[in-house]
Amino acid sequence: MAKIKVELKERSYEIVVGTDILSNLGKIIKEAGWGSEIFIITDQLVNELFGDKLRQGLISFSCQTLEIPRGERQKNLKIAAKLYDELVDHAAHRDSLILALGGGVIGDLAGFVAATYMRGINYIQVPTTLLAQVDAAIGGKTGVNHPNGKNLIGAFYQPKLVYSDLQCLSSLPARELRTGLAEVVKYGIIEDADFFQFLETNAHHLNTKAFESPDTLRAALKVWQTIVAESAKIKATVVSHDEMETGRRMILNFGHTIGHALESLTHYKAYNHGEAVAIGMVATAKIAQEINLLAAPVVERIRSLLTRLELPVKLEGINIDKVISAMGIDKKVKGGKLRLALPEAIGNIRIVDDIPAKTISRVLQEMGCQ
Amino acid sequence: MAKIKVELKERSYEIVVGTDILSNLGKIIKEAGWGSEIFIITDQLVNELFGDKLRQGLISFSCQTLEIPRGERQKNLKIAAKLYDELVDHAAHRDSLILALGGGVIGDLAGFVAATYMRGINYIQVPTTLLAQVDAAIGGKTGVNHPNGKNLIGAFYQPKLVYSDLQCLSSLPARELRTGLAEVVKYGIIEDADFFQFLETNAHHLNTKAFESPDTLRAALKVWQTIVAESAKIKATVVSHDEMETGRRMILNFGHTIGHALESLTHYKAYNHGEAVAIGMVATAKIAQEINLLAAPVVERIRSLLTRLELPVKLEGINIDKVISAMGIDKKVKGGKLRLALPEAIGNIRIVDDIPAKTISRVLQEMGCQ
Repeated sequence: MAKIKVELKERSYEIVVGTDILSNLGKIIKEAGWGSEIFIITDQLVNELFGDKLRQGLISFSCQTLEIPRGERQKNLKIAAKLYDELVDHAAHRDSLILALGGGVIGDLAGFVAATYMRGINYIQVPTTLLAQVDAAIGGKTGVNHPNGKNLIGAFYQPKLVYSDLQCLSSLPARELRTGLAEVVKYGIIEDADFFQFLETNAHHLNTKAFESPDTLRAALKVWQTIVAESAKIKATVVSHDEMETGRRMILNFGHTIGHALESLTHYKAYNHGEAVAIGMVATAKIAQEINLLAAPVVERIRSLLTRLELPVKLEGINIDKVISAMGIDKKVKGGKLRLALPEAIGNIRIVDDIPAKTISRVLQEMGCQ
Repeated sequence: MAKIKVELKERSYEIVVGTDILSNLGKIIKEAGWGSEIFIITDQLVNELFGDKLRQGLISFSCQTLEIPRGERQKNLKIAAKLYDELVDHAAHRDSLILALGGGVIGDLAGFVAATYMRGINYIQVPTTLLAQVDAAIGGKTGVNHPNGKNLIGAFYQPKLVYSDLQCLSSLPARELRTGLAEVVKYGIIEDADFFQFLETNAHHLNTKAFESPDTLRAALKVWQTIVAESAKIKATVVSHDEMETGRRMILNFGHTIGHALESLTHYKAYNHGEAVAIGMVATAKIAQEINLLAAPVVERIRSLLTRLELPVKLEGINIDKVISAMGIDKKVKGGKLRLALPEAIGNIRIVDDIPAKTISRVLQEMGCQ
């Protein structure tokens, strides 16, 4: 088991990463005194998979499970309003505690409801997907989507604890595992060359097959323990230095400006988040190469690792102008200038302003854009 | 002009109180660099009264005015959603700045939208009612109502500035002015005996008549300057010590637990907020007297000042059990115990737990409850 501290003064909290730990959570909550009454927010599938295990440890609490429909499209203000209604119906009060059991959608939505119910009640992230364990559940970004933009309505609101059980990963479909791996690779690129190398060395283990037999499961869990804990540590460090994303936290957006544009352009259907980010990272690395910030062999290392992890690195059948325009309305635009987080080397990133659209166009064309 | 600092570390801000200062706000925003684009959120009446004056100073900004329908019933999630839509339509971004121009409803709602649009953008409170200038606009409580409870959905989110123009008070109806005075009296009781005495000395000036002739207007504005600035200072101090209302900030609830019960019971029709709080303060002072915390002559001083300010101090035609039950579901209930902020003397208050319902019943009966 690993414990990582997110240092945010009076809002500091721990990330716990371990195997088969769900049923211990109740004891931790009791000792910390985080709430007298528990509301688990989850979806039906996740509830079927992990709900009972989690509730086993909560028998000494009054506990309600609130299920919401599954999927990114449910992350909206209407579902949030429904959750407020249910909390009110169950007389949830300031000492009530929300557990967000699920992936990023559940975490963002339940976190937002926790942030805004009675001006903020305690909540704990219990992420069950790789993407949520290494990214979404850490850092206090909560929110729901607006028809015209993802996460347009939200709040920065830190959980009391992030509680990641690696056992949950074994039930993930391969594509879901891969989407998380894109963010894992990102952490290596932006902050930690050794970690990137660890991923290169272990890439052949990083798939769902390792979970399939009891023989390989133990070895796999050991690798995943390192991956989730290291990723969490990197994200925690960045968040500690810039809780509200006014500066340094922007480096976490490496690959995301182009990634978000692709997701939005294809109406969140062609690519999942990690796939779009994988393409975005390759494109962004190539932009860094174009402006002589990054050497060509490093771009190739990035492309090669992502390919081995079965993540997409090409961009076919997409219109260049549409990507550029989709980037222009991305919420990372500051004062009208296009600003990107660009790598100088593996483990080293910087923010560059005023990147010309034609550089971006050229790179997109190289990658197969029309 | 007075400036009061609300000390909240990196979230600190100033309260400015002055006369005829609306048109200077643009200059202050420019110098502070709080935003490149301004959205004024207001209602039609307030916009007609003060909008042009405010916009006079904003000519160098891109500026949109978003009007919402007037009244407490509009403070809901649906109107917030409509404001999100309008902000998105106007491509509001992270550097956009919201000005909340109006009373408490506008301030709470616009503050909540600012707190949750793109996870928080800058906003400034420009309170135009006495109640908002001395209370609602200070301290970062933002939110909207749920059909089952006031302010059930909200966030703590501090403005960049509270900018109170006393000139706005001259257009307030008498009853609106009085509702603010109840909170003003509260500040004297909970924190400042000298200020309470100042109110006793000047009670005859504290009405709308003083605004009516140019002769009395100047003297009146001087008195109001003291009242608004002193009230703001007291609230700022309490908020500085307890931003999230986990402890000391509870003293601001003096009179409010009973007040809220009365408002809720009468469906926010029989009493406005200040009237309900006035009755609540007298009842609470009597409870303090019943448990030998407060001397009878002090209760009489409180009752007498409120009466001179034409605020209600009796409770007729209301059912005792309904008040008690309405208090039981009030959100200030912690762990099932009834906890009240009770005065020990003018300027001195403390939190008392476990107040027996029968003490409350007896007091309510004395005040005319059935």
